Amino acid sequence: MSLIIIGTVAFDAIETPFGKTDKIVGGAATYASLAASYFYNKVKIVGVVGDDFLQKDIDTFTNHGIDTEGLQIKAGEKSFFWSGKYHNDMNSRDTLATELNVLADFDPIIPESYQDCEYLMLGNLTPQIQQTVINRLSNRPKLIVLDTMNFWMDVAMDDLLKTISMVDVLTINDAEARQLSGEYALVKAAKKILTMGPKYLIIKKGEHGALLFHENQIFSAPALPLAEVFDPTGAGDTFAGGFIGYLAKVGTINFNNMKNAIIYGSALASFCVEKFGNERILNLTEAEVAGRIQEFVNLSAFTIEA
Amino acid sequence: MSLIIIGTVAFDAIETPFGKTDKIVGGAATYASLAASYFYNKVKIVGVVGDDFLQKDIDTFTNHGIDTEGLQIKAGEKSFFWSGKYHNDMNSRDTLATELNVLADFDPIIPESYQDCEYLMLGNLTPQIQQTVINRLSNRPKLIVLDTMNFWMDVAMDDLLKTISMVDVLTINDAEARQLSGEYALVKAAKKILTMGPKYLIIKKGEHGALLFHENQIFSAPALPLAEVFDPTGAGDTFAGGFIGYLAKVGTINFNNMKNAIIYGSALASFCVEKFGNERILNLTEAEVAGRIQEFVNLSAFTIEA
Repeated sequence: MSLIIIGTVAFDAIETPFGKTDKIVGGAATYASLAASYFYNKVKIVGVVGDDFLQKDIDTFTNHGIDTEGLQIKAGEKSFFWSGKYHNDMNSRDTLATELNVLADFDPIIPESYQDCEYLMLGNLTPQIQQTVINRLSNRPKLIVLDTMNFWMDVAMDDLLKTISMVDVLTINDAEARQLSGEYALVKAAKKILTMGPKYLIIKKGEHGALLFHENQIFSAPALPLAEVFDPTGAGDTFAGGFIGYLAKVGTINFNNMKNAIIYGSALASFCVEKFGNERILNLTEAEVAGRIQEFVNLSAFTIEA
Repeated sequence: MSLIIIGTVAFDAIETPFGKTDKIVGGAATYASLAASYFYNKVKIVGVVGDDFLQKDIDTFTNHGIDTEGLQIKAGEKSFFWSGKYHNDMNSRDTLATELNVLADFDPIIPESYQDCEYLMLGNLTPQIQQTVINRLSNRPKLIVLDTMNFWMDVAMDDLLKTISMVDVLTINDAEARQLSGEYALVKAAKKILTMGPKYLIIKKGEHGALLFHENQIFSAPALPLAEVFDPTGAGDTFAGGFIGYLAKVGTINFNNMKNAIIYGSALASFCVEKFGNERILNLTEAEVAGRIQEFVNLSAFTIEA
């Protein structure tokens, strides 16, 4: 049994008020798989890179026990490249460059050894590719989590709705939930979205935490208030990876485990933003993760006696 | 021993996408004292109205056991009047009219019977008047809570800083915390503000809940996700009133009780927005309040076993 994560594997060049990086390994599948690897040891990625993606870059994954058999390497082509510059408030950014390169005609290959997939994380990509991955798995996974964004609502809504109808959990931000549903109040937005297919909806609110909706239940997860956000790149993907990695570890899908999974995902994301790119989530210790989880517990616990 | 609440007592005319009201009784002291009255039975208000404020309007308070000896009634003058129109998203509004009337030269009178004040809520007013109230109490109250807003930071920062230095708890919103401290990250903003006098800082984030800061401790309180916000007027004052009313009831000031007070304040505020003006908080039952508190407990509880 395994957890498969599909998404971009890329080079990023990031500029924040604290400095700038050369090209570093980024992409949704990178952040998500690294995060998941802290909780589950059968993480496999599906993606595509060019031959500018060197062995040392691939080692980023293998050092974490992540299976890269599904990572295609296209000879003579270049990897997806993104470059962005964050503004002083860290809540907005300008994209300086987006070079699709190998991503332009990405056709995901699912190796035979991946057919034991039990948990599937569909990282942000075209809804069409996300569907293709589901269709190429001989058995429907026990849990499919979909991450997407407003861009696909703008340019490929029909495809996106089809993909949404095929998954169990959808993770989007508050503005995207409003756009997808046409409802401003998140409770109403969630109600509508939960009729589109997913049984669980996670609305990410960045520094304001996240909301989990399931049937008539709601869970409000806090975000850790941070003195310094060094680089927000990849935080959402890290959240998603930590989330599904934790669920793969516990193995039972229910509302309580989903709540905890959100806390674990949030904890991993809170590390991610402390350094550039994936640097901080490359070498976390068990004690660091446990300590951060305890901070989340302390942050939101209260006891009212009736 | 008593809880004194000072603030505006006013007529409001409110328009929302759901309808509009005639002149109804509003003002910070009105919302705060009504909310506090659910938890504490010695609530006294300080304020000023004109003789257009009729006995039936005063009954709004006396029906809730609120002492109005400190409410001056100025013959031949008119009460403070505010009129506003909320936009469709309910998060922004236009002020249509602000008529200061009696508020223009308000000089707060503290009746002798109010000198037993143990808890003092300084609702939004000029920082100068807020100071005057503190100075006119012969004994420094056990707990002083200050609510203020960006307007006073713009026009009377020195006075405001002086008032802030005299209180125990400051409640402001996130934009105001940033303005007051010059820091964007709320953790840094809080650290600075806690050097200005208050031992506790509450940062209100509206639909995203609230943060409580005290020494090195942080508490993140959720907001109840609401399907319908009918009228947000007075929600912040209702929060503050419920908050200090609960503390007056329990009588011990510590971080745990502050956390619970925020939940009680948030619960009352969540009722307030369900109808126009103060309508919903005029006749709450104990069972309704207890049920709402339970919703907050359910909303944010999770159990992670180490």
